[in-house]
Amino acid sequence: METNMFMKRAIELSKMALQTGKGGPFGCVIVKDGKIVGEGHNQVTSTNDPTAHAEVVAIRNACKNLNSFQLEGCEVYTSCEPCPMCLGAIYWARPSKVYFANTREDAKQIGFDDSFIYDEIPLSISHRKIPMLSMNRNQALLVFEEWKNKSDKTEY
Amino acid sequence: METNMFMKRAIELSKMALQTGKGGPFGCVIVKDGKIVGEGHNQVTSTNDPTAHAEVVAIRNACKNLNSFQLEGCEVYTSCEPCPMCLGAIYWARPSKVYFANTREDAKQIGFDDSFIYDEIPLSISHRKIPMLSMNRNQALLVFEEWKNKSDKTEY
Repeated sequence: METNMFMKRAIELSKMALQTGKGGPFGCVIVKDGKIVGEGHNQVTSTNDPTAHAEVVAIRNACKNLNSFQLEGCEVYTSCEPCPMCLGAIYWARPSKVYFANTREDAKQIGFDDSFIYDEIPLSISHRKIPMLSMNRNQALLVFEEWKNKSDKTEY
Repeated sequence: METNMFMKRAIELSKMALQTGKGGPFGCVIVKDGKIVGEGHNQVTSTNDPTAHAEVVAIRNACKNLNSFQLEGCEVYTSCEPCPMCLGAIYWARPSKVYFANTREDAKQIGFDDSFIYDEIPLSISHRKIPMLSMNRNQALLVFEEWKNKSDKTEY
């Protein structure tokens, strides 16, 4: 089967991350109007940044290049199905489509927690493995009220 | 009710983000052994980075300060229940506990998509609002195989 040229580049980036010791075997490119506008590969361990997954790095790179905090009309090509963090980042960036190659089950097979985190996210707060406790909601609500009433805000 | 000093700081940061126009009304601090080791506030719109939520910024800051890609033994104090992206980031960073003030429903009330994204994450790929399509898994699997067989890798 022929490989799509953008996915080919995403897979190349995943291989590069692995072979140069930058991080895990994950790569991603962002495409707009048939051109690559952003790229990224995993660099968690080389930059001490647990959020530096391929998709997050590529989204940040594309947004910087496009001078925008949104990726309207863009397509994401990622060498692996996004983990929940990256999927969340994709929803916030709002591209029009996502293509992926390896699956979350494939990631699990080589030792990555994507699948475990997918299981945790929909659980009620009291059932999660990391304890999550509520406090001081009333004080924080005052700031939300201030946001609601702010007239010159930039929404996102 | 008295406010916990770390949550007080997280709420202060959320207010600062709003009042200085840096981004949405969200703040976060990371604490280890009773001391703040990282801080962040939302800066999505001011830095054109859709991933620059308070928790992601604080996690990156704490990891930089601790020179580690893990937050073992740390506590996260966030002014709002984390969105799925930030919750994913928290799972990857592996702190021991999370405290939050506003809830995802409070965030929805002032116009944030957290609740929508929580609904999307557990859906099967074919039912999501952003189309997600599989391609070229066989090519990408070769890189995963290479990772599995790599002897000198740093796992995370």
